[in-house]
Amino acid sequence: MAAMEGPFSFTPIGIVHSPFRALEDIPKERNADPRGFDDVEGTIAIDPAWAPALQDIDGFSHLIVLFVFHRSAGPRLYGHPPLETEPRGIFSTRSPHRPNPLGLTIVRLLGRRDNRLSVAGLDMLDGTPVLDIKPYTERDRKDGIRAGWMQKS
Amino acid sequence: MAAMEGPFSFTPIGIVHSPFRALEDIPKERNADPRGFDDVEGTIAIDPAWAPALQDIDGFSHLIVLFVFHRSAGPRLYGHPPLETEPRGIFSTRSPHRPNPLGLTIVRLLGRRDNRLSVAGLDMLDGTPVLDIKPYTERDRKDGIRAGWMQKS
Repeated sequence: MAAMEGPFSFTPIGIVHSPFRALEDIPKERNADPRGFDDVEGTIAIDPAWAPALQDIDGFSHLIVLFVFHRSAGPRLYGHPPLETEPRGIFSTRSPHRPNPLGLTIVRLLGRRDNRLSVAGLDMLDGTPVLDIKPYTERDRKDGIRAGWMQKS
Repeated sequence: MAAMEGPFSFTPIGIVHSPFRALEDIPKERNADPRGFDDVEGTIAIDPAWAPALQDIDGFSHLIVLFVFHRSAGPRLYGHPPLETEPRGIFSTRSPHRPNPLGLTIVRLLGRRDNRLSVAGLDMLDGTPVLDIKPYTERDRKDGIRAGWMQKS
């Protein structure tokens, strides 16, 4: 493998305000349901310095939120997903205990007031540092997906 | 806004081998088509130290690749998307010139040999540093999406 650059350093551009104050507040059962977090509402507050970069975002129904799993227990090769008995390779899971503790959640945009985005579909802890916001587009909507060990039917 | 932690440092776990050696090799017209990159094949080589974490990944049809826009021209508030005349708030674009130069592409997994993933749907430059691989699941497939300024119809 060719030599890789890095490490790369990223500074949060915002913070998540969610109803989940601690890991125990996140019901594991929600994970088993693809729509399990759809009704979880909260706010993403963007650093006022970056607020102008939110221009034009209101036209999008869904946003991709990239964040730091700031309570990650550190990198693991295998994960033990909730309600699963077998360990799984960490890259086949959405576990926070990844080589790089980066998280990704697609939320529904309910509205914006200045630098504050009201959203639904949060599965992150309150206080989660946000690194990036991207528009969710037709390109991100894939057909004919097969979801490996997660596939129940 | 509450104080935020950070900065956070991430080390690449792999590298993209794509047909695009330079920015000029990426046809701008492909960006206008949601399926514009579907036929672009290449390899993601994972650091052998992390190869065991690829276990179970073969069952997934699509993978989310998080990477570094390592040729980003630095953070901008506004972007000028290809074929667009108006500037757009950078968080409403997928421009590489973001506050944190993090990229996200969903690829189709064609196969795996040890630490090498054969994939289709690449839109990254050859040599792009990869930070994370996640399985694409039903939860990431959103209905009723509205794509703001990108929506042509």
